[in-house]
Amino acid sequence: MFNDKLKEECGVFGVYNLEGKDVSPTIYYGLLALQHRGQESCGIAVSDTFSNSYNINSVKDMGLVNNVFNKENLSSLKGNIGVGHVRYSTTGASVRENAQPLVLNYMKGTLALSHNGNLINLEELSHELKKSGSIFYTNIDSEVIASCIAKERVLSSSIEEAVCKTMKKIEGAYSIVVMSPRKLIGLRDPYGFKPLCIGKKDNSYIFSSESSALDNIGAEFIRDVEPGEVVTISSKGIESNKENMIDKNLQGRCVFEYIYFSRVDSFIDGVSVYDARVKSGEYLAKQSFVDADIVTGVPDSGNAAAIGYAKESGIPYRVVFVKNNYIGRTFIKPDPNERTSAVQMKLNVLKNIVKDKRIVLVDDSIVRGTTSNQIISMLKDAGAREVHMRISSPPFLYPCYFGIDVPSRKELIASSHTKEEIRKIIGADSLDYLNTDNLSHLVNDLGICKGCFTGDYPIKNIKGKQKKLVR
Amino acid sequence: MFNDKLKEECGVFGVYNLEGKDVSPTIYYGLLALQHRGQESCGIAVSDTFSNSYNINSVKDMGLVNNVFNKENLSSLKGNIGVGHVRYSTTGASVRENAQPLVLNYMKGTLALSHNGNLINLEELSHELKKSGSIFYTNIDSEVIASCIAKERVLSSSIEEAVCKTMKKIEGAYSIVVMSPRKLIGLRDPYGFKPLCIGKKDNSYIFSSESSALDNIGAEFIRDVEPGEVVTISSKGIESNKENMIDKNLQGRCVFEYIYFSRVDSFIDGVSVYDARVKSGEYLAKQSFVDADIVTGVPDSGNAAAIGYAKESGIPYRVVFVKNNYIGRTFIKPDPNERTSAVQMKLNVLKNIVKDKRIVLVDDSIVRGTTSNQIISMLKDAGAREVHMRISSPPFLYPCYFGIDVPSRKELIASSHTKEEIRKIIGADSLDYLNTDNLSHLVNDLGICKGCFTGDYPIKNIKGKQKKLVR
Amino acid sequence: MFNDKLKEECGVFGVYNLEGKDVSPTIYYGLLALQHRGQESCGIAVSDTFSNSYNINSVKDMGLVNNVFNKENLSSLKGNIGVGHVRYSTTGASVRENAQPLVLNYMKGTLALSHNGNLINLEELSHELKKSGSIFYTNIDSEVIASCIAKERVLSSSIEEAVCKTMKKIEGAYSIVVMSPRKLIGLRDPYGFKPLCIGKKDNSYIFSSESSALDNIGAEFIRDVEPGEVVTISSKGIESNKENMIDKNLQGRCVFEYIYFSRVDSFIDGVSVYDARVKSGEYLAKQSFVDADIVTGVPDSGNAAAIGYAKESGIPYRVVFVKNNYIGRTFIKPDPNERTSAVQMKLNVLKNIVKDKRIVLVDDSIVRGTTSNQIISMLKDAGAREVHMRISSPPFLYPCYFGIDVPSRKELIASSHTKEEIRKIIGADSLDYLNTDNLSHLVNDLGICKGCFTGDYPIKNIKGKQKKLVR
Amino acid sequence: MFNDKLKEECGVFGVYNLEGKDVSPTIYYGLLALQHRGQESCGIAVSDTFSNSYNINSVKDMGLVNNVFNKENLSSLKGNIGVGHVRYSTTGASVRENAQPLVLNYMKGTLALSHNGNLINLEELSHELKKSGSIFYTNIDSEVIASCIAKERVLSSSIEEAVCKTMKKIEGAYSIVVMSPRKLIGLRDPYGFKPLCIGKKDNSYIFSSESSALDNIGAEFIRDVEPGEVVTISSKGIESNKENMIDKNLQGRCVFEYIYFSRVDSFIDGVSVYDARVKSGEYLAKQSFVDADIVTGVPDSGNAAAIGYAKESGIPYRVVFVKNNYIGRTFIKPDPNERTSAVQMKLNVLKNIVKDKRIVLVDDSIVRGTTSNQIISMLKDAGAREVHMRISSPPFLYPCYFGIDVPSRKELIASSHTKEEIRKIIGADSLDYLNTDNLSHLVNDLGICKGCFTGDYPIKNIKGKQKKLVR
Repeated sequence: MFNDKLKEECGVFGVYNLEGKDVSPTIYYGLLALQHRGQESCGIAVSDTFSNSYNINSVKDMGLVNNVFNKENLSSLKGNIGVGHVRYSTTGASVRENAQPLVLNYMKGTLALSHNGNLINLEELSHELKKSGSIFYTNIDSEVIASCIAKERVLSSSIEEAVCKTMKKIEGAYSIVVMSPRKLIGLRDPYGFKPLCIGKKDNSYIFSSESSALDNIGAEFIRDVEPGEVVTISSKGIESNKENMIDKNLQGRCVFEYIYFSRVDSFIDGVSVYDARVKSGEYLAKQSFVDADIVTGVPDSGNAAAIGYAKESGIPYRVVFVKNNYIGRTFIKPDPNERTSAVQMKLNVLKNIVKDKRIVLVDDSIVRGTTSNQIISMLKDAGAREVHMRISSPPFLYPCYFGIDVPSRKELIASSHTKEEIRKIIGADSLDYLNTDNLSHLVNDLGICKGCFTGDYPIKNIKGKQKKLVR
Repeated sequence: MFNDKLKEECGVFGVYNLEGKDVSPTIYYGLLALQHRGQESCGIAVSDTFSNSYNINSVKDMGLVNNVFNKENLSSLKGNIGVGHVRYSTTGASVRENAQPLVLNYMKGTLALSHNGNLINLEELSHELKKSGSIFYTNIDSEVIASCIAKERVLSSSIEEAVCKTMKKIEGAYSIVVMSPRKLIGLRDPYGFKPLCIGKKDNSYIFSSESSALDNIGAEFIRDVEPGEVVTISSKGIESNKENMIDKNLQGRCVFEYIYFSRVDSFIDGVSVYDARVKSGEYLAKQSFVDADIVTGVPDSGNAAAIGYAKESGIPYRVVFVKNNYIGRTFIKPDPNERTSAVQMKLNVLKNIVKDKRIVLVDDSIVRGTTSNQIISMLKDAGAREVHMRISSPPFLYPCYFGIDVPSRKELIASSHTKEEIRKIIGADSLDYLNTDNLSHLVNDLGICKGCFTGDYPIKNIKGKQKKLVR
Repeated sequence: MFNDKLKEECGVFGVYNLEGKDVSPTIYYGLLALQHRGQESCGIAVSDTFSNSYNINSVKDMGLVNNVFNKENLSSLKGNIGVGHVRYSTTGASVRENAQPLVLNYMKGTLALSHNGNLINLEELSHELKKSGSIFYTNIDSEVIASCIAKERVLSSSIEEAVCKTMKKIEGAYSIVVMSPRKLIGLRDPYGFKPLCIGKKDNSYIFSSESSALDNIGAEFIRDVEPGEVVTISSKGIESNKENMIDKNLQGRCVFEYIYFSRVDSFIDGVSVYDARVKSGEYLAKQSFVDADIVTGVPDSGNAAAIGYAKESGIPYRVVFVKNNYIGRTFIKPDPNERTSAVQMKLNVLKNIVKDKRIVLVDDSIVRGTTSNQIISMLKDAGAREVHMRISSPPFLYPCYFGIDVPSRKELIASSHTKEEIRKIIGADSLDYLNTDNLSHLVNDLGICKGCFTGDYPIKNIKGKQKKLVR
Repeated sequence: MFNDKLKEECGVFGVYNLEGKDVSPTIYYGLLALQHRGQESCGIAVSDTFSNSYNINSVKDMGLVNNVFNKENLSSLKGNIGVGHVRYSTTGASVRENAQPLVLNYMKGTLALSHNGNLINLEELSHELKKSGSIFYTNIDSEVIASCIAKERVLSSSIEEAVCKTMKKIEGAYSIVVMSPRKLIGLRDPYGFKPLCIGKKDNSYIFSSESSALDNIGAEFIRDVEPGEVVTISSKGIESNKENMIDKNLQGRCVFEYIYFSRVDSFIDGVSVYDARVKSGEYLAKQSFVDADIVTGVPDSGNAAAIGYAKESGIPYRVVFVKNNYIGRTFIKPDPNERTSAVQMKLNVLKNIVKDKRIVLVDDSIVRGTTSNQIISMLKDAGAREVHMRISSPPFLYPCYFGIDVPSRKELIASSHTKEEIRKIIGADSLDYLNTDNLSHLVNDLGICKGCFTGDYPIKNIKGKQKKLVR
């Protein structure tokens, strides 16, 4: 809802209907349900395993799912197997050419690929491929991954084998759905940075970045693709290859998927995002109780943590913000000289509730601090006596190499200010963050990546491989 | 959010900047904040009281405020006085020609007009005007009102006088902002069906359908325009004419403005919409208590009433629905043969919270019953043990002549089914509605229209004047 | 083809199919054939005389016929009677609201109107109507004409009678097609400034600005509507009212319809436009012979006159220019600092033919002189030894009040320069214009308007009525 | 102008400005002048040799030059070196992905490529590249050519060397402009199927498919790129490599470039297209004289040949057709049940000229025969006594493998009917074609390809290499 937020990279979705029914409508609804993971471009590619043709048809363009797809182009996508993608760019410019799924021809015919994540050895790989004559059209990871698969396919006996070999070459975060004209393959990097799960509806198998999209389309959740696993769906049913899996202790799920990116109704690797957020609020309350009249969350991502804080602290939870759901992407920003702010246009305060109250305000993170400052001002203008800010994640101090788009170090308020300085800047009466130690407890002690909080990443020697730092 | 809802007609907005600053950005933000009152078309018309020209420039088109306006056309609207409009059509087709504000030339120069409401003697008036040679381009009330004003203006000494005379001729619901090149006039019908209030920001006076729009743009709420009042803003400041006001007891505010149409953070005639909704929940709990584990509301309009129910009943309030904010106007509806429903795409249930619970589900109204049925199914599918539906308004039984777009009698479930039949249709374990007697108490005993619940309207003899019934 | 040209105002088209077939396709093709008469906006309005409904449906917008109409909106226009319009604005801004046909409701139902021409007593009429309370939305003549008809209709026994009465009030140039839900009426002002003819195809009667449009749609030319005549088509067939006709000697056809505006394959009032142009070239050759090797015309309007000059002089006619047909409306003009000109992009010279030749170059008029200068330069650059310019009309010296859009006096080269000065400016070796005396002979001595050449207009006392002069 | 015509594949354009000025405007005007060579998609790619960056920026899309480019995107294309392309697809679907110039990254940085022509060993080459792991996004020749260049570049010391090596691998028709970030390279296949010439304007060198585009932008024609030549423009000026040139007698220019595709004002390999067409008419008159009153051409491509026929036969040439220039790409075709035809909408006949005349009608080719039939009908309907059809090329009997899009054999009238049968079908009083023997004389005995007339192609053993036949 606010620009002053961390940005997720992408969402992937894939469907294989064993009975031959068209899957493009299901993918369309799946992408709509994953839209929060990427709003720059989107696309669907389909193939028909029952025809003699090995063609892949696709529609992709800049824009939201609602804008790119219409009845006409959706019904032109005939086929019982398909992949979809929603994209927000971290690497690669925001241009039409970079829209996914990538669709290409190679030795064995055609291939489509949707990717969520960020490689750290991209330049190395790309350089090597070019030395043997490869050409690339885009500057996105996905094209290099596809080229690797195509190259491995020449010496492999199946597309799955080529995919498994490719996993040994690419390093970083990736949840991918690959479609050959007869197979649908879902894979997840060995660290499990990004989520990917499997669902089923009637005679369709489904891959989805998030389980909530399965709910929205009326599908049943089967299980998560495991970190390092390659799951292949074909006319023979479902098969799994686990040769690239690593020790569970080395896994490094992105903790922001729980705290902010994923929808609150998703489950990732067995953990409810809602529960993780509620717990974060509970830990915050234990860690940093403050006497107040009401607890509230910054909509929408702060709400569940606020409920947790309320539960633990005994202070009543109240909704105090009213959102304007009509502020769209083309919203013209207010003149900075005017006193009207974009935040004020998006949120209003229920004055009756706020007046004369001491408020605990819970949010998931502070990036630049500007939004927090405006929201706290609004509460004070509406008569709040005190506003105590509680953040349901630790301070964001280090670059993310795995797909979170973070502003430059200079803009990142926590990397250049003390907690007290930040408190003053945002105008809060007190401020506290969740302790790093509590992070793993939120997710039942699953292996997570704490790199952005501690500088200690699941993959070592990143610096040598990766020239791109935080921008 | 759901199609199966009552529809509001319009929102109006007007600004007069006494210092000569351009008002089009302020109107743009005002219309964004009123967008929930009409999503079919919108427009802005401006004039410059400091120039020698008496021109009015306007931009209007089909679509949302975000789509119709861009930096380029907004900055082309120069002038320190202006009116805006968002429209949902009840009378008049949904075509570009019917977009408002209406802009026209007449004897004294130019005029712009934005209107919210519905006249009941439209045909009578229109016939009379045509008999003297008038031509009309549209089939909307507003054009007839403008023609009346133009005709009265010939024999009046001022535009205000013409407006006051016109009010004696037109009957029905109207909140109007009229702009002549030098004056901005806000008026409200004597019954006060539709809201209209006055705000101030720096050196600008503002008319707005709702006070929440004043909050969003950082303006101060001054007061409501009173039912029957004509408020004129000119270089001389603010003036009021009250010759058309009627006895307070005869007033007939639309109660649905409180229950559903207006944003929850608005105040109308001194009553907080939020408070009115919380009270409706409290009355419901008193009236129709049921033993349950949690109370929740159908987002977003049922939430405040659910909070009231929880408060009065002592049963804890929980948020159990997660919305998809990306389902837009061009959303392709799921094939009815598929098990995926549009409601399911828009809402998902937090299973952890719902499982094995007895739930009180509060909504503002039941129109066709289809949405209620789907939502209750979703709760049951997620493991809810019981679902008790409580509606924060009485059954909708009679046509509305004053601007609510109601489906035909046949589609209106309450007019053809008993409460028990409806309960079965929607699949609830119990069902109850708010009593009609309690309605006035929600709004501190202000005069309200209960026509749609009782068939007894503030204006008598409607049938003779109005041929259009509920469609 | 060139911007430096006089501009025509509009084209009108109407069809009545007696058998009940949809006429919108025929009108679409008719408007395409009249597109040269107006490229700013266009529209079609239809009605169904066989239904019980008296509705008029219309589609109109800014843009070319090809852009505004598509299969979908064209097939939505159901009805066996209709009017169309293509517009270039002389009065009234170039905005969507001014697109025609005008469609309106009045005492007797609905009315649609398409108009070509320009009234001279517009302000007078408009003032009078406003005094009785009329409102206007646009600033175009057509709305005032429609209002007059509506007003007269109140006291008339038929729409034809109201039209005839209106003709007594409006002064100036007008060829109009009016559609009531059951009748189609074509009328032409008493002076016959603008053309209008009647055609027939199968069971359809057709009104068209030009006869060439009848050819294009495969219709038969019946006759011209006579100056001052009102022709009514109804289920009873065709009827004529001639009460507003004036003495033939007073008629004042616009001679530029023959020289430039109308398509060369049209016939107006019995005279072939092609023949009139060939004659103009023959007269020029008689008047102003020059010894040369070839004669050529500036495409396309100068070609027929060049053929006439060649015929009379005995000098061979050659095509020497090649046009680029892909320079459209959105063509980005070359930077004036570059040596590439827009004319050069639109035309190229066949060097083989031009090299070392003495050339007679014929064009229809010189407005600003810039295009002529560029074309003569191109010929000289391609090796032409001499270029003798011959213009097939007299110098344009006075304003036109009847619908030609002329640049301001300052820009009009002939009104501020002698022939010798112009010759130098355009870079010709000699220059001559057609004599005014010869004009009538081009059109078989029909009454014509020579106002722009002589200042003597068919309607007297224009100055008193008309405030708008040449801009 | 007519759909029933042979279709050209593409036009290419490239500019190198040695002083560092932006070339995108020049390319825009160049593409506008080449638009007749391809109307499906177009694009421009630029680079800046004076910057440290090696980036290539591009804009390309479906549509005409006028539609794809606007001031905004054109001015975003900064750089002093660039290539452009207009495309009509013969191989490769008509989709956005196939729009050119192709822009790609490879070992040495970036590359852009515009291609006109058709390879005959495409599948062979593509298969070989894929075997080493290459991936392709499109199904167009140009991508394979680019991949070959990238692959050769690995083992070459310069881009020119890689281009020369690539020419030894690719077989078929190609005129190509390649841009590396510092060089602009124009090359033409050894047979010279497609034209390509060099021009100069101020400090810019230019490659263009046709010389007429140089005239339109005010550039000077330098010379043609010779068949088999590689011309490189860099900061060092112009260099030529001729290692791939073959014996002049083996060359095989496409004779339809002279007869129909190229603009009449172009010169190809020293021969004026206009002169070649006039000569074709002269030969036709010698070959097949008929006594008649006038000679005319089917616009526009038949006109020059008609002038030649008139010259040789002594029968006067007359323009008898008037075109409608407003029939665009989105033109809705008339219902085939109606008597109005698309040809009739596009052309009208000057009846005065045609009436009672015996006419020689000259056209460049007969594809399906439908257009010829309609045009002859129009002349007869307008009163022509006799119509004698003369075609300025031999009958089209065999497939073209080099870039002409011919309809299937079944639709190609000449391959399944005798001359007498065709005469009857088109309704002519007599019919004749140009003799194949005369073809070379039209172009001063340059080596030409007569494959489509005789089945004897400049490249032998085509069948073994090329699976695609005439569709």
